[in-house]
Amino acid sequence: MHHGPTDYRRKIVNADTSVFADVYCEDGIIHEVGNDLSVPDGTTVIDAAGKLVMPGGIDPHTHMQLPFMGTVASEDFYTGTAAGLAGGTTMIIDFVIPNPQQPLMEAYQTWREWASRSVADYTFHVAVTWWDDSVYEDMGTLVNEYGVNSFKHFMAYKNAIMAPDETLVNSFSRCLELGAMPTVHAENGELVYHLQRKLIEAGFTGPEAHPLSRPSQVEGEAANRAIRIAQSIGVPLYLVHVSCEEAVNEIARARHEGQRVYGEVLAGHLELDDSVYQSKDWATAAAHVMSPPFRPKGHQEVLWKALQGGTLQTTATDHCCFCEEQKAAGKDDFSKIPNGTAGIEDRMMILWDSGVNKGRLTENEFVAVASANTAKIFNIYPRKGCIAKGADADIVIWDANKEHTISAKTHHQNIDFNIFEGRTVKGSVDTTISQGKVVFADGQLTVTEGAGRYIERPAFPTVYEAVKKYNEQHQPVAVER
Amino acid sequence: MHHGPTDYRRKIVNADTSVFADVYCEDGIIHEVGNDLSVPDGTTVIDAAGKLVMPGGIDPHTHMQLPFMGTVASEDFYTGTAAGLAGGTTMIIDFVIPNPQQPLMEAYQTWREWASRSVADYTFHVAVTWWDDSVYEDMGTLVNEYGVNSFKHFMAYKNAIMAPDETLVNSFSRCLELGAMPTVHAENGELVYHLQRKLIEAGFTGPEAHPLSRPSQVEGEAANRAIRIAQSIGVPLYLVHVSCEEAVNEIARARHEGQRVYGEVLAGHLELDDSVYQSKDWATAAAHVMSPPFRPKGHQEVLWKALQGGTLQTTATDHCCFCEEQKAAGKDDFSKIPNGTAGIEDRMMILWDSGVNKGRLTENEFVAVASANTAKIFNIYPRKGCIAKGADADIVIWDANKEHTISAKTHHQNIDFNIFEGRTVKGSVDTTISQGKVVFADGQLTVTEGAGRYIERPAFPTVYEAVKKYNEQHQPVAVER
Amino acid sequence: MHHGPTDYRRKIVNADTSVFADVYCEDGIIHEVGNDLSVPDGTTVIDAAGKLVMPGGIDPHTHMQLPFMGTVASEDFYTGTAAGLAGGTTMIIDFVIPNPQQPLMEAYQTWREWASRSVADYTFHVAVTWWDDSVYEDMGTLVNEYGVNSFKHFMAYKNAIMAPDETLVNSFSRCLELGAMPTVHAENGELVYHLQRKLIEAGFTGPEAHPLSRPSQVEGEAANRAIRIAQSIGVPLYLVHVSCEEAVNEIARARHEGQRVYGEVLAGHLELDDSVYQSKDWATAAAHVMSPPFRPKGHQEVLWKALQGGTLQTTATDHCCFCEEQKAAGKDDFSKIPNGTAGIEDRMMILWDSGVNKGRLTENEFVAVASANTAKIFNIYPRKGCIAKGADADIVIWDANKEHTISAKTHHQNIDFNIFEGRTVKGSVDTTISQGKVVFADGQLTVTEGAGRYIERPAFPTVYEAVKKYNEQHQPVAVER
Amino acid sequence: MHHGPTDYRRKIVNADTSVFADVYCEDGIIHEVGNDLSVPDGTTVIDAAGKLVMPGGIDPHTHMQLPFMGTVASEDFYTGTAAGLAGGTTMIIDFVIPNPQQPLMEAYQTWREWASRSVADYTFHVAVTWWDDSVYEDMGTLVNEYGVNSFKHFMAYKNAIMAPDETLVNSFSRCLELGAMPTVHAENGELVYHLQRKLIEAGFTGPEAHPLSRPSQVEGEAANRAIRIAQSIGVPLYLVHVSCEEAVNEIARARHEGQRVYGEVLAGHLELDDSVYQSKDWATAAAHVMSPPFRPKGHQEVLWKALQGGTLQTTATDHCCFCEEQKAAGKDDFSKIPNGTAGIEDRMMILWDSGVNKGRLTENEFVAVASANTAKIFNIYPRKGCIAKGADADIVIWDANKEHTISAKTHHQNIDFNIFEGRTVKGSVDTTISQGKVVFADGQLTVTEGAGRYIERPAFPTVYEAVKKYNEQHQPVAVER
Repeated sequence: MHHGPTDYRRKIVNADTSVFADVYCEDGIIHEVGNDLSVPDGTTVIDAAGKLVMPGGIDPHTHMQLPFMGTVASEDFYTGTAAGLAGGTTMIIDFVIPNPQQPLMEAYQTWREWASRSVADYTFHVAVTWWDDSVYEDMGTLVNEYGVNSFKHFMAYKNAIMAPDETLVNSFSRCLELGAMPTVHAENGELVYHLQRKLIEAGFTGPEAHPLSRPSQVEGEAANRAIRIAQSIGVPLYLVHVSCEEAVNEIARARHEGQRVYGEVLAGHLELDDSVYQSKDWATAAAHVMSPPFRPKGHQEVLWKALQGGTLQTTATDHCCFCEEQKAAGKDDFSKIPNGTAGIEDRMMILWDSGVNKGRLTENEFVAVASANTAKIFNIYPRKGCIAKGADADIVIWDANKEHTISAKTHHQNIDFNIFEGRTVKGSVDTTISQGKVVFADGQLTVTEGAGRYIERPAFPTVYEAVKKYNEQHQPVAVER
Repeated sequence: MHHGPTDYRRKIVNADTSVFADVYCEDGIIHEVGNDLSVPDGTTVIDAAGKLVMPGGIDPHTHMQLPFMGTVASEDFYTGTAAGLAGGTTMIIDFVIPNPQQPLMEAYQTWREWASRSVADYTFHVAVTWWDDSVYEDMGTLVNEYGVNSFKHFMAYKNAIMAPDETLVNSFSRCLELGAMPTVHAENGELVYHLQRKLIEAGFTGPEAHPLSRPSQVEGEAANRAIRIAQSIGVPLYLVHVSCEEAVNEIARARHEGQRVYGEVLAGHLELDDSVYQSKDWATAAAHVMSPPFRPKGHQEVLWKALQGGTLQTTATDHCCFCEEQKAAGKDDFSKIPNGTAGIEDRMMILWDSGVNKGRLTENEFVAVASANTAKIFNIYPRKGCIAKGADADIVIWDANKEHTISAKTHHQNIDFNIFEGRTVKGSVDTTISQGKVVFADGQLTVTEGAGRYIERPAFPTVYEAVKKYNEQHQPVAVER
Repeated sequence: MHHGPTDYRRKIVNADTSVFADVYCEDGIIHEVGNDLSVPDGTTVIDAAGKLVMPGGIDPHTHMQLPFMGTVASEDFYTGTAAGLAGGTTMIIDFVIPNPQQPLMEAYQTWREWASRSVADYTFHVAVTWWDDSVYEDMGTLVNEYGVNSFKHFMAYKNAIMAPDETLVNSFSRCLELGAMPTVHAENGELVYHLQRKLIEAGFTGPEAHPLSRPSQVEGEAANRAIRIAQSIGVPLYLVHVSCEEAVNEIARARHEGQRVYGEVLAGHLELDDSVYQSKDWATAAAHVMSPPFRPKGHQEVLWKALQGGTLQTTATDHCCFCEEQKAAGKDDFSKIPNGTAGIEDRMMILWDSGVNKGRLTENEFVAVASANTAKIFNIYPRKGCIAKGADADIVIWDANKEHTISAKTHHQNIDFNIFEGRTVKGSVDTTISQGKVVFADGQLTVTEGAGRYIERPAFPTVYEAVKKYNEQHQPVAVER
Repeated sequence: MHHGPTDYRRKIVNADTSVFADVYCEDGIIHEVGNDLSVPDGTTVIDAAGKLVMPGGIDPHTHMQLPFMGTVASEDFYTGTAAGLAGGTTMIIDFVIPNPQQPLMEAYQTWREWASRSVADYTFHVAVTWWDDSVYEDMGTLVNEYGVNSFKHFMAYKNAIMAPDETLVNSFSRCLELGAMPTVHAENGELVYHLQRKLIEAGFTGPEAHPLSRPSQVEGEAANRAIRIAQSIGVPLYLVHVSCEEAVNEIARARHEGQRVYGEVLAGHLELDDSVYQSKDWATAAAHVMSPPFRPKGHQEVLWKALQGGTLQTTATDHCCFCEEQKAAGKDDFSKIPNGTAGIEDRMMILWDSGVNKGRLTENEFVAVASANTAKIFNIYPRKGCIAKGADADIVIWDANKEHTISAKTHHQNIDFNIFEGRTVKGSVDTTISQGKVVFADGQLTVTEGAGRYIERPAFPTVYEAVKKYNEQHQPVAVER
């Protein structure tokens, strides 16, 4: 692997437009974009003729080595970020998830240590799983001293990490003060708990009961609730893994009414439906257990259209790997199956094949939803998410004609299952560059443990300027009596 | 006052159609409807030529002598039901509201005793303000032995009678077993509490802060939540005092998707907007404090259209009277102003004048929303809500040409304020008949304390047949592995 | 067959409620409803114990012996009304369809003569297929002298009977003057014509091209256009054969905004999807060719929910029979296949089985959508659509437990095909009574040619009172300058 | 005025992000963007410290010297483009509008000649006001040889330039072949005509009748119709001057369903309501007559939210000037008042003041809706609409703190009236640069007649790649029989 300056050629695809030009990188930064660039002798030149030069993907939703439901996710930060690079994803946003009562700073430091082995850049959302004054203080410390600008709230997982409305109100209010983005996992945990018990009492213990225990209206409810709380407080909101028509409609309504609400969709939810839970093979059905679950046919098309029409802005994976023996913990009770599926390596290929090839997305929209929009929303644009002078040299060279068959046998993800098993896509990664270095080419990874950097994200993204002025316009006025 | 048989003439207006005929009553029952009826000698004949003979109004939402916010509503069951008769309303559904931890049966008996002084028929919704096994049991007793078929849930009033989602889930499930109708006051109590504190901290202590502390999205949120919970459990749902576009839209959506959801609107919400809270006179502003509050201009037209289009089915008043000295308890803190306004006497006139005279409602639709729909939803139709052989002789003779000016100076309601003060309506009560007796005529009430009867309402209204079959069609199916 | 008085017993199901009582008929009229009726000696008594006594069905959309697309519908008024009676339908509303330039009165007289052979009651919508002053005049004559209170407009069938916007505007305005109901077949004929040509040019000549030539948005467009025109003129509107989500959504929106808009749905559209056009057998595929076509899976559930939720009010069949040899006219060009399917005999059974048995409709809602709502909208209620003293004795005794297998081999419809072939329903006709006479019992028809009467329908149904007042409230006001 | 190289400094605001950098221009092109640029001696340096450097505005909807309704717009291409520069708008898209039966090429050449006096860059939409084979041919010529990539269709103006559905279908189909964008003026001309006649017959001849003759549902109808036609043909669509909630909702729905539909809003519609037509002064009321008219209060907020939420993408003015004596042609008949208002000079200030200052738009969103989105949709991005190396040096230096009072007395527009008269905005133009030259500074214009260039716009913008693939995915499939 070379460390010197490099020159990558031809069609550059950004979120706003495509141009034909060369890219010259130096010291991990894009130094110049243009034609007829004069480059130093010895510069490594990669010929991207006929290919597309795009900003590396950003996956805003991963859970590497997450301790969850009595086990730990099999994919760690080293293997997980490497698998991402093999799929053209050059950065992740993972989650710090404190146990209830655990200090946020303590959890944060634990995750930072785990992540230090990453081979590509990374950063963290921090979950607010409980509330007291120390949480309030730690949120400030994280934003002001550690470059955290987003906080996650689980509206599901009762008796574990579920945040009740009181916590949402407190934490969203704090986010507004700090210029940070609140995010939510939107499912009504009370209803999920009730439905789980009811199903199990009725003898439904297998994975086919999983989707029945969290039907789409349960997500629609929570999405609306989070949106209404954010509206009442005057803060923007980001909904992770939007999986169903009900939630899409709530976001669309809120945006239509001028609220600053953003939605993320997973590659899996775009493509798979709930028939996967009908598999006669328990392990296969269980391998698909994640929350929200895959939805009945029909929801997928709604999600695609929402992505195309701008109701949803980002794509992710919720990459959280549990192998068959881990899933077996729920053999007699579906509610104990560790929730999670993989996909960090597959996301961009699936998105291209079903998005661009089917006419749902232009190549520019592909870059927007795979990378640029995430960078904008989480305020690291144009350092990330953009091929432009001064940006980080995180680049994927895309071959729109390359066919690739996805399989657990060949993928780099540390899990024994692939939810897209056997699917052949057209459009795949030719070369991945991270910090200006070729890390994936000719199907081979060339990565360095610990090469990934923690990326600080400044608070108060531009949208906050508008939010602040908007809130000022809507202050109460006293009546003199 | 006479007790013998009576014959009331001419245009009979029911919810489904109008016909020209006479009505003959005997023993408090409508004995015959038709032309050229042969009646016993000595029958009192009322000439209703040129007038409309309609079923007496039913107000499904009143709070007589309610102990609330440190005081007791000034209107009791005697004065309140009498005022109702003066306005053409011949029956009320009031509320039993146990304190948290108070046994439901105990509260029920207390309210039954209070209500025994009523001059017109009455019945009760019972509120579920807390949860344990005894509540579960008492709900069964009330339905099976005491003719209760509806239970109320307050989603607001944190630290008092607010029901959290867990209680909603438990109680709605119990309602489904019992064939009873769950009803909700839909406002997110957590948000109201937060906004109240924020406003007071910012120095907004007057009544103009009341509507700001519970904006319409707070109701929209709770409406959607209750609807989604009902959907998940498979139970019908009735929303009391729907006051805003957001809640209307949620109900419309649910009905559009086939869910059995009903909505009630108050006469006050149809007509007044939130400018009332801007009054320079504290007492006037405070007199309008109720929850949900009167809404910004625009919502009223949405409510009317929802009533016209069938999204809302019933009209009520939430009649709950507090006089000026009672309201003064919140002089320094709007959140301590006892919530409530009057209207039982005015409802039908307002509804006629703004509804029928403005072309929003036909005369049949007027009967539907003033009386028949409530009787149907709460399963006392056609005993109530209908002019037909066999029905109770609760009748109002309506004079569509009679003008009447509403005023606290002349109304029969036991309160020193009228939110419709000074309004002249066209269309008013000529005569009210309760249990076959003339109780209001020539502007005079002739009532008897205790003449009102407690009306038992059977469980499992017809809609439950459909609900039951629908739920059976959507049972989970096990996968054999 | 007996002509004397008759007494039919037990559970009487009306649109508003169900009661247990007996029905006594005399001279074709329901003379009394009640218990312990005293009836003349010699009265024929039918024991309806365990069965439901309901108003006979009304089919508001049939085309008996229609001359159309170069042929004539195989079902005439004699056979068609008889088939209706076998299915519990005791009245039809057929259509007078003048050729462009043909005087309306001339066409009306022609249809009256054809219909004189009917064995059950009937009436007519009259189509406005062209415009000049004579059409304006004839509309007045029909309303004022012939008991017509509804006019039909085809927005499809370019170069034939399509009414352009100019005609819609003129005719809707005339309807408002006359107190008549405008109705529309909502499909954009310009788009249908374009898509037909494009498909045929591309070599798609078979019946599978039929649904592609009139996709659902083509209906949604026309539905919205008709609704907006009606709104601008201030007239109610009735949409026939609403077949898709797009049109349902337009109606729902309009009703939500307070507009008086009604929708009808066909039994076929509720149950069948567009896979029927994929049949390898040309004749089978062609037998399903009607307009609007059967829709992709998904639309059916939307229609059911719209019927349940009140967005749609009536059910019909568009009964229009063409046998295989007639359909063959379009062997080489799908656009020449005579459009039409049968169903007058099957409608109520399908509606019961898929509606009531599946928990979508209560028994009262069944009566509403099968009969009462049509009677109300077209102003013949409570003469029709109701079991009540004074109503016409058009009655169906329904056996909710009776199973029946639908088949062209056994049906009474004069067509060689049945779109519900082989389906076994639970819930069927026990006995049909028309004008007080048993006309169908024990599976046998006992009908009399010409026994059916032409039913005059008065103009200005009650809704017009509201419409008139509403329009008055929205008059322009001049500015003085 | 200098013609040499120039260097403009500091905060550069693009649609995607803002950065601090300098801009170096040479030969009318942006040569470099960055810090510490080395520039040739003698370069003119403009200090933009504390100001915003943004791409010049593009107004996609103007009518300079339009012959219309018997007169000619008072603003010609020379004065109009100059007024634009004074307001920061550096490019316009005007309209070629052939008379019915006039060859498109002939009209196009006429407009090209008129426009040759422009002082800033310009281009043309071409209207399709009639149809025959020559129109089909000329559309091809215009696209392939003259750089036209958009065609306009008037759905209003019956008996003049109104395009019936047949023309829309033909022309939209042709646009699809050519890779051009169809655009529509969406109002139902048949309804407008009917309502105009009805109002005049009722004696309403003044300007207050203008908005009543084209209520918002008339626009909603046409918007939906155009969208459904575009959907059926598989072509993108752009709606000009969207003015009301009904049309916004149609666009939102279409986009939500994945259709490629774009909407434009005028500065006037965002800010003014229909109370302007109530002016006691005829000339004032008439000065506001344009179509669609200004709308009732409430619509404005909907438009703003649609712009903010992404349902609408561009802003324009429909700049079309008629002075008082011209307007007087309709003194006795409002339908003869020449339709049009001015605004090219005011648009960006209004948009900044009500958009950015009120928290509805970020500064980047301001650039998007004022310039970049138009450039993208009409395929001249990034040459226009972007501050980037290689782009045209059309730049506005914006002073966010500069106050400016709008008035007909001081504006550069050639009209005696300003619809924003007397309004003081905060945020205005400091300096305008066109083709690298300072053309407006210190409140002074320094323009050159004929300096403006005709800008060719290539067909097949990127979105067409997606559209083409999408259409291919939805081809019919023949059934083998």
